Amino acid sequence: MKVRKPKIVVLGAGYGGLMTVTRLQKQIGSNDAEIVLVNKNDYHYETTWLHEASAGTLHHDRVRYAITDVIDKSRVQFIQDTAEKVDLEAKKVLLKNGEVTYDYLVVALGGAPETFGIPGLDKYAFSITNVNSARQIREHIEYQFATYKVEQGEKPERLTIVVGGAGFTGIEFLGELGNRIPELCKEYDIDQTLVKVICVEAAPTALPGFDPELVEYATAQLERKNIEFRIGTAIKEATPEGIIVAKGEDETEEIKAGTVVWAAGVRGNPIIEASGFENMRGRVKVDPDLRAPGQPDVFVIGDCSLVINEEINRPYPPTAQIAMQQGELVAANLARIVQGKSDLETFTFENKGTVCSLGDDDAIGVVFGKKMTGTKAAFMKKMIDNRALYMIGGVSLTMKKGKFNLL
Amino acid sequence: MKVRKPKIVVLGAGYGGLMTVTRLQKQIGSNDAEIVLVNKNDYHYETTWLHEASAGTLHHDRVRYAITDVIDKSRVQFIQDTAEKVDLEAKKVLLKNGEVTYDYLVVALGGAPETFGIPGLDKYAFSITNVNSARQIREHIEYQFATYKVEQGEKPERLTIVVGGAGFTGIEFLGELGNRIPELCKEYDIDQTLVKVICVEAAPTALPGFDPELVEYATAQLERKNIEFRIGTAIKEATPEGIIVAKGEDETEEIKAGTVVWAAGVRGNPIIEASGFENMRGRVKVDPDLRAPGQPDVFVIGDCSLVINEEINRPYPPTAQIAMQQGELVAANLARIVQGKSDLETFTFENKGTVCSLGDDDAIGVVFGKKMTGTKAAFMKKMIDNRALYMIGGVSLTMKKGKFNLL
Repeated sequence: MKVRKPKIVVLGAGYGGLMTVTRLQKQIGSNDAEIVLVNKNDYHYETTWLHEASAGTLHHDRVRYAITDVIDKSRVQFIQDTAEKVDLEAKKVLLKNGEVTYDYLVVALGGAPETFGIPGLDKYAFSITNVNSARQIREHIEYQFATYKVEQGEKPERLTIVVGGAGFTGIEFLGELGNRIPELCKEYDIDQTLVKVICVEAAPTALPGFDPELVEYATAQLERKNIEFRIGTAIKEATPEGIIVAKGEDETEEIKAGTVVWAAGVRGNPIIEASGFENMRGRVKVDPDLRAPGQPDVFVIGDCSLVINEEINRPYPPTAQIAMQQGELVAANLARIVQGKSDLETFTFENKGTVCSLGDDDAIGVVFGKKMTGTKAAFMKKMIDNRALYMIGGVSLTMKKGKFNLL
Repeated sequence: MKVRKPKIVVLGAGYGGLMTVTRLQKQIGSNDAEIVLVNKNDYHYETTWLHEASAGTLHHDRVRYAITDVIDKSRVQFIQDTAEKVDLEAKKVLLKNGEVTYDYLVVALGGAPETFGIPGLDKYAFSITNVNSARQIREHIEYQFATYKVEQGEKPERLTIVVGGAGFTGIEFLGELGNRIPELCKEYDIDQTLVKVICVEAAPTALPGFDPELVEYATAQLERKNIEFRIGTAIKEATPEGIIVAKGEDETEEIKAGTVVWAAGVRGNPIIEASGFENMRGRVKVDPDLRAPGQPDVFVIGDCSLVINEEINRPYPPTAQIAMQQGELVAANLARIVQGKSDLETFTFENKGTVCSLGDDDAIGVVFGKKMTGTKAAFMKKMIDNRALYMIGGVSLTMKKGKFNLL
């Protein structure tokens, strides 16, 4: 009697999902399991490069590649559709245009902006979320500059860009803006001294958790590019005209701005809550083998998952690095399952380091425990970006999409 | 006794103004007169190429050049300022940041959009007027496409572009859009069948005054590029959502559109009315020697002037060709005046032909009485564009800014 092949469904073709699928297609024989990948777009995008596309320093086609470039079509069935809910009871996923059943599921759907209930942010602020939103931010800024010129300077706030949040994404976006503003001023015949870029951060420091010496380097470098920091300043509201920030105990201040980009928070995909997983802000605190608690057939990885860093008893921040390592482990565990093994491997995050770029030509970072700044760190950043391509798509993808302007 | 040198002031560095100045600096000795050129920008732009910059098919830096590239700085004083009013009594021009007196004045300030009192057009429609407005139209369309994608198709009208007017500018702009839309769809991942480009024209035909056979060729070619014509349809109003057009006797119809470009009318510069010249829609019906009636020291040329075509007893349409011919004649007449001659030459328009482009690769035209279409006409169009550069700036300017992608 021939046993039906188990069906593995992977939701999402981000870092975690694609790593899972590209490993699975090598590790599982075609008779052992069916592999299905579901993704909204027919392309993968580099979430960690989106700040470049948003600023307009890198074209959005450079930050994405076709999913069919990296999957083995004879082994993986690709469904282009949007996952809307997981029916854990019936073991199926409801899609916008259909549904797909599974024996084993990997939820790797990424994050969503977290606005912490601040009024107006969802309506009047942009988020660096995906290719579409990055492209819109780029175009919005350009349209503001073009319109300023037509209005003959009537509304100087069109040349003001507020970035909410001095975390990783905020700082990297500011670094790109620092390089982009001079180009924009040339393109739109605008006096550069009229442009304001203001970073508003509620926490008492930029880049919380980073080495303070590196943080100081980063802010000083960005200030040299005329970026203004308002640290320890909370955004109270976003409006069609800009933002309202807290000032002292009871007062507020309006900062008029043609462009507000919210880069301060990420939560898990709304599908997590919609499907009834136990969660914290859309993230599932996964078991050591990366399965959702009480769901032996469902793995959750990437921004939808929560893994505690035991050393400091706080969750690891959601990064591409951790998502890819999770994808590798989930592929290995699924391989064990379909091969009839019952003991699964447990996940340990191996932090290879973190580099935060400050534009194409500058960065700060800690790599294998070593602090670095400037062009050396910028070089490391590009190597990290290239490594992500290599891990998922091998040499050919790296050659096609990699960053080789290595200073 | 040394007589004070007369001071010639030329307002505007468009086709007429620059032709006047570049001829004057050759024809008048440095002891004979002082020459002053006043212009808002430090650059000249090719008004007849603005539809390309507006559609995004040619970068706006390709349609302009520095005024200092063509004037002889030892002979001509350039003032970058905006003329606001001519004080004919006191023989001076009030500028935004000062004033300038003159002995002889050339008003070559170009036109302004004529909206014929249709409500909302000035507020909600764009006009292809100058470099700033062209750049804004380009960016506006791109922003609409980017936003459509972020909204996941919620507002299909973002992909609708209405062009008001099927005259020369309207048709040339449509031709560029026809070529640009496929590029935009690729850039923004949009299905081309969702894009609508609609030309609304109140007159009973496109390109009134053109040979009907050529008009038919033009509209058929544009329709092949998915452009829809609503001929004999009057715009009643422009709104934030699009336009309202007349339908039958009493009814109206709304056309929702993210972008409305008004390309149907040109009047003279408002300064003509503000300064008390006799005028019709901001245009001065000039004497045969191109002086304003009753103003022996003031010449008016280009879009601010009105010259009657005696053959049909109607004004010649304002074109670059007529403005440049007027500039040549005014320079010659001013040379006669400063040399003490009292008889001035009279103006006769020599129509060398007209070519209307339908994109980079197609056109219709009548040149030296000969009808032509297609690539041959497109070639002629580029030769005409290059000729304007040559007439004002000689070989070096033509080499620098000319169109040499001659199919």
